[in-house]
Amino acid sequence: MSATTPRITAVDTYDIRFPTSRELDGSDAMNPDPDYSAAYVVLRTSDGEPEGHGFTFTIGRGNDVQVAAIDALRPHVVGRSVAELCADPGSLSRDLIGDSQLRWLGPEKGVMHMAVGAVLNAVWDLAAKRAGKPLWQLLADADPEWLVSQVDFRYIADALTPDEALELLRKGRQGAADRSRHLREVGYPAYTTSPGWLGYSDEKLTRLAAQAVADGFTQIKLKVGADLEDDIRRCRVAREAVGPRIRMAIDANQRWNVAEAIEWTSALAAFDPYWIEEPTSPDDVLGHAAIRRGVHPIKVATGEHVQNRIVFKQLLQAGAIDVLQLDSARVAGVNENLAILLLAARFDVPVCPHAGGVGLCELVQHLSMFDYVALSGTTEDRVIEFVDHLHQHFLDPVVIDNGHYRAPTAPGFSAEMDQAAIDTYRYPDGAFWAADLAGGGKEELS
Amino acid sequence: MSATTPRITAVDTYDIRFPTSRELDGSDAMNPDPDYSAAYVVLRTSDGEPEGHGFTFTIGRGNDVQVAAIDALRPHVVGRSVAELCADPGSLSRDLIGDSQLRWLGPEKGVMHMAVGAVLNAVWDLAAKRAGKPLWQLLADADPEWLVSQVDFRYIADALTPDEALELLRKGRQGAADRSRHLREVGYPAYTTSPGWLGYSDEKLTRLAAQAVADGFTQIKLKVGADLEDDIRRCRVAREAVGPRIRMAIDANQRWNVAEAIEWTSALAAFDPYWIEEPTSPDDVLGHAAIRRGVHPIKVATGEHVQNRIVFKQLLQAGAIDVLQLDSARVAGVNENLAILLLAARFDVPVCPHAGGVGLCELVQHLSMFDYVALSGTTEDRVIEFVDHLHQHFLDPVVIDNGHYRAPTAPGFSAEMDQAAIDTYRYPDGAFWAADLAGGGKEELS
Repeated sequence: MSATTPRITAVDTYDIRFPTSRELDGSDAMNPDPDYSAAYVVLRTSDGEPEGHGFTFTIGRGNDVQVAAIDALRPHVVGRSVAELCADPGSLSRDLIGDSQLRWLGPEKGVMHMAVGAVLNAVWDLAAKRAGKPLWQLLADADPEWLVSQVDFRYIADALTPDEALELLRKGRQGAADRSRHLREVGYPAYTTSPGWLGYSDEKLTRLAAQAVADGFTQIKLKVGADLEDDIRRCRVAREAVGPRIRMAIDANQRWNVAEAIEWTSALAAFDPYWIEEPTSPDDVLGHAAIRRGVHPIKVATGEHVQNRIVFKQLLQAGAIDVLQLDSARVAGVNENLAILLLAARFDVPVCPHAGGVGLCELVQHLSMFDYVALSGTTEDRVIEFVDHLHQHFLDPVVIDNGHYRAPTAPGFSAEMDQAAIDTYRYPDGAFWAADLAGGGKEELS
Repeated sequence: MSATTPRITAVDTYDIRFPTSRELDGSDAMNPDPDYSAAYVVLRTSDGEPEGHGFTFTIGRGNDVQVAAIDALRPHVVGRSVAELCADPGSLSRDLIGDSQLRWLGPEKGVMHMAVGAVLNAVWDLAAKRAGKPLWQLLADADPEWLVSQVDFRYIADALTPDEALELLRKGRQGAADRSRHLREVGYPAYTTSPGWLGYSDEKLTRLAAQAVADGFTQIKLKVGADLEDDIRRCRVAREAVGPRIRMAIDANQRWNVAEAIEWTSALAAFDPYWIEEPTSPDDVLGHAAIRRGVHPIKVATGEHVQNRIVFKQLLQAGAIDVLQLDSARVAGVNENLAILLLAARFDVPVCPHAGGVGLCELVQHLSMFDYVALSGTTEDRVIEFVDHLHQHFLDPVVIDNGHYRAPTAPGFSAEMDQAAIDTYRYPDGAFWAADLAGGGKEELS
């Protein structure tokens, strides 16, 4: 190999935390005080060309553990050829997931798997930047055979074979040019969670729900699950604010046991909820199947905490969900999300991604837009979550226009954060935290 | 609270790694070169009385990530009253699992959950030492009501209610005194994996298998899954060495897809394998159910990588396993293992724990012995795995006698490691590693 082959020279990691808990933004029945955080990674390169940026998302404490897990992957990445990495991110994916010693810490779940996701997201940012395309377009333009080569079929071949995946992708290309044009003109439908946080007053809920409709959204979402009487009141308030034709999803953030989920959801049925999201543990495939039978015709949705393609496979096999909510930073990055999109297409279940937090909207829009242009071929019953927090810290923030995500045009995965944000919110030594901690601001356990 | 109330003054953590990969001990189809490691924790106390020792187990790289995760739990533990902690470990369990920000990193799975397990194992060691009893006896002597209070029924109440658990425990106490006496006399049956590591020659396999029978074991286990022709030969060799009446389990360490698991296992059926262990991903409940149907009458076993009680619940609900292999250090410690033992009893599935590694035999014997004395009431079709590695580093190592674990008599959870072992194998600055790394011994990625 030539000494001048561009290579990855460093994997730099950053513990970045935003003090969102102080405004009760993002409060729900399981997460009363999240500090939206990113375990952020930059792949430095030897040639001075664009670098790869990626991250996984946490809600505060433990973001340092997540950074330590990314650090543990460094030896697999440093020294790799940039060109080889961009030509075949799947090769790195297999090496990272397959590290036999690190695999013990999962396998393929939790901290270690999210760390793999952060690194692979950075690799795909690098690949898209160097291809001069937004990631959604890089994926939509790619050969179906190459896309199939990027997917790990281990543990899912009983539900989806490489041949079946190839057929889905070939079929998905029919009409892709028209859909790509439509996407650039109209964007991809969004729904908004901004009105419905548990910590908000009824007045604020009413105001934000009405604003959402005025802004062109056709679906909103409310957090539920802490107190049934409160939920009944809040659902009534929200339904009155948006009228009968706006879809209103509700989200319990894993609060319930199976029987409780059925009872509680049924008690809110009068307000015509569109889906019940995360009614119970994300690990409980059979529980979701029972809940779905019990709350019909209200739909069941989950996915933001579903650990990998293997659990998604079973949720689909068991007929446990109506809506699949993949997350850009929970699983092992774009490669595993390709597997999940293919599984959803195979079972004909719509994907409505989880987003919000910090940077999740920026990332996940690319996956849904690829799905629309070159896989499922439709946006029917499909919406990407939108929450209006922290976008200002990104170089290429999402743009919402009349209730739609506008298609990104800048090369990359929209993952790159402003250097000023990094310098300010790096924990514990960034400008904000240094001042805050010196002032005795936040206790370790608030 | 009195200033003289004994309290936890520190949570000290240690990254301890043994260079086991150099001897090919512990090699299997997914783990070719494990360095058995412990993320080790000591709860220091203010009163000079016994401290609590605990750990979780990894196989090398990433043990530092595991230690970082335990460190993240420290603020929940330091300052607690020792008496309150020992009287109600479940209270700490709820606080650790329920930390809303750390929970995002799971929930209840992987690195963060294993960290909770390490801390809770140390708490139970502390409680048993202070009660002057080996842990199995502390649990067997405890009031059923108190044991039920130690279990988190969230997400499992559809399969096991607190009332049902109480009934199982009350029934389990009938005849407990007789079984306790029998246990002290005869011990608890073991099986041995020592002959069957993938890296061993046929000659070594034959010799160790024959030795196992001579030592009084009635079951051995072979690693399979790397190469079918090799497996056929090794199964034949082992079966010839032990004769027809010794149970011979086989273990694929998650190597296969569903169809492959059925085909490969069927190809080894001629050698009368007792169970096929970890045929596929530990996350694949429905896959295990399909494999069980496909390989009948060969039994299906899994559990060492099953992340929590919720997945065990589903494996039982789906009729996916014949044998439940809980692990002492994969889930959130003794409290969650009580839930798992109760679920197994509820579904009448025998528990044959995973052990080996470093210290897993020491820990898990207590759980099986409690199960025998005061819950399931039987050792029929129940065996604890035994591997003869690294026991010399513990103050109260397991003792195997005629194929049985002898019941521990020393107070505690048998979790405490020799200070000399800690000083020697602490990574990277213990005596062994400092010398080894200075000598250019082990590469980061071997």
